[in-house]
Formats: sequence, structure tokens, C-alpha cells
Amino acid sequence: MPKIVDHEEQRAHIADAVTQIIIRDGFDHVTMRQIATEAGYAHGAISRYFPDKQSLLTAAFLQVFNASHERILTLVGPTRGLSALRIMSQQLLPFREKSAEVSRVVLSFWDRAAQVPEILEVHKRTITQRRGLIRRFLQEAAEDNELHPSVDVEEAINRVSVFNAGWQMLAVLTPEDSTGRHVTASIDAMIAGLGTERSNSSD
Amino acid sequence: MPKIVDHEEQRAHIADAVTQIIIRDGFDHVTMRQIATEAGYAHGAISRYFPDKQSLLTAAFLQVFNASHERILTLVGPTRGLSALRIMSQQLLPFREKSAEVSRVVLSFWDRAAQVPEILEVHKRTITQRRGLIRRFLQEAAEDNELHPSVDVEEAINRVSVFNAGWQMLAVLTPEDSTGRHVTASIDAMIAGLGTERSNSSD
Repeated sequence: MPKIVDHEEQRAHIADAVTQIIIRDGFDHVTMRQIATEAGYAHGAISRYFPDKQSLLTAAFLQVFNASHERILTLVGPTRGLSALRIMSQQLLPFREKSAEVSRVVLSFWDRAAQVPEILEVHKRTITQRRGLIRRFLQEAAEDNELHPSVDVEEAINRVSVFNAGWQMLAVLTPEDSTGRHVTASIDAMIAGLGTERSNSSD
Repeated sequence: MPKIVDHEEQRAHIADAVTQIIIRDGFDHVTMRQIATEAGYAHGAISRYFPDKQSLLTAAFLQVFNASHERILTLVGPTRGLSALRIMSQQLLPFREKSAEVSRVVLSFWDRAAQVPEILEVHKRTITQRRGLIRRFLQEAAEDNELHPSVDVEEAINRVSVFNAGWQMLAVLTPEDSTGRHVTASIDAMIAGLGTERSNSSD
């Protein structure tokens, strides 16, 4: 009797194995053999789904990205504006050990996106999705009169994107500056810089 | 008559060739043979100075880092505080095509620093140097009563580091959002968020 195989589940399982190896050993050390061992699959099962290392990295990145995107939407729920933006940053920034670890996947993905046009395309799709969510929160903030009148929404999308991207680097490379206290202070300052309340702070 | 060789100059020349190849083809495509061709040296001349790809990447990164560090110090001259910080950001951010290109070297270096302890050590030395300079400018701003009283210098060092790092990513991966106008607006917002004048903006 043929075993019923859930291909989506197998792909996700392999992508997860790739993430674990990147966190433990780094992407340069990812081999098909190692992934097969980590995932508990035969060597051929891996290459059937993913023909090369690039497709494995892309799968690992998309899994990390989609999981954080879903988590943000769930946690935000009906929350709007700057409060929603805060929830987003709390999910993306290296608050918990696990999110600092997955930043390693992000760093490897960025480096390859800079080199491989197909990976850059995937990056563009995800960054468009992320920027769309940031735009939504900022527009809500503007509608609710939370946004400082001097803040231009499109420029602020860049500001928040730069903020999130910069923290991925710090999470991995200077973890001593990326503790919960530092990250909280940083999010507070970022949100304060966007809000109408900034002019009242400590004056 | 033996040719007099300036080893420092040869190393710098090779590091420059590596940077050119990273910009053109990406670090994954760097080979000893290609560097020899690019630099106009014999194959053996490269490996005499740099035993492996990691040492080549490190040399290319240090050249980029040291050049920008020297350029900042020269341009800052006697300028202090937030004005000096602005000059620094203008040098580090992707204003000119060339600075966006060298961000590719930075991205590759970060990814390897996350994987190789010796490269992480080099990164730590450079980040300590950079943070020291940011600290100096912020302390000057505090002494000159330019800094908003709610701003903590150590937290602000993180804020500026995150800002600079985040822009390296945008420069490479979303160049369409990294034009001079966007970058200028972003630096203005970052500086305004630190200064005493922020409470006066557009109220």
C-alpha cells in the first residue's frame, strides 16, 4: 500500500532542518547530506523538492518570513496604528533567543539576494508584503491623529524598514547590545519619533 | 636586479580586486584564479598574501571600512556633535552609487561574521571603533546642549548603529527606496529625533 505523503509538510520539514543547520553551523556548511540526516530523510528526497542550496535557503527564509507575518497578523488583531506597529516590531526584533537565531537565516538570505536575481525577486515579494503592512499601520495612525504632522508616511515606511533591518544585523553580530532592555528602549524611541506625543516628552 | 615590492600596496591592490568582483558577480563567485586575473597577478601571488576566501573577504571589508573611517574623520575635522553625526551618516549611507555598491561587501562580510568566529572578531573590532566615534559625537552633542534631555547616550549609540546597518541592507536590496531624497529625509528624521529642536518641529 503506497504511503500517503503530504508534500507541503515534507517541504516545511526540510526547510525547518535547513534553518536548524544555518543556526548551528552557518549556511556555508549546509550540504544535501547533512539536511537529509537532520530531516531524517533519504538523500534523494531532499533534491526531489529542492534542486540546489539556493532553493533550500529560499525555503528556509520564506518559512521564517511567513511564520512571522502570520504571527504579527494574529497578535495585531483589531489593534491599529502605532500600537500595531509596536506589536510588529516586538515580533521582528530579537527579543527572544529564537528570533535572534532566525536572524542568521535572514542575513544569509540577504547576502544571496544581492547576488542571485531569482532570490532578489523573492526578497522583493516579501519586502513588498512587509512594507504594505507598515503602510497600513502608519495610515491608520494618521487617520487616528496619532501620527506627528511632520511625518510623511512613505518616508516613515523607509524609517521603520531600516529600523527592522538594522536590528537583524545587531541581533546576530552584537548580541550584547541586543538584550530585551536595549530593544525595548529602541522600539520606544522609534514609536515616539513618529507620534504626536513626541513634543511633550520630558519638556 | 630584484624588483622592490611594496607588500602593503600589493595587499591593498588585491583587496580592491576582491571588492570589484563582489560588486560585479557576488562573493560566492570569487575564485583565486579570477582575483589573479582582475589584479593582474600570478595565481601564486594571491595565495601568498591571502590563504583562503575568508581572508580575502576580510581584507576587502577592512579596506572599505578603513577608507570610510578615514574619510569621516577628515570631513568631520573640528565639527562636533549632531553636525558631525550627520557628516558620518552622509558618508556611510548610500548617497552615491559607489557607496551603495560597497554595501555588497558589507552584507557578505556580515553573513560570514555570523558563521566564522575569526571573522566575527574582526567585525567586533570595527564595530567597537565605529561605536566609539558615534559615542564621541553624541557626548559632544550632550555637552553642547544639542541632545534632547530624554536621550540616553548608550541607547542612542544603538539607535544610530541600527540606522546605519539597516541602510546597508536597503542600499543593496531595495535601491529604489534608497535614492538621495529618501536618504536625506531619513538622516534628517534620525538627527531630529536626537536633538533638542525636535519639540519645535511643525507645531
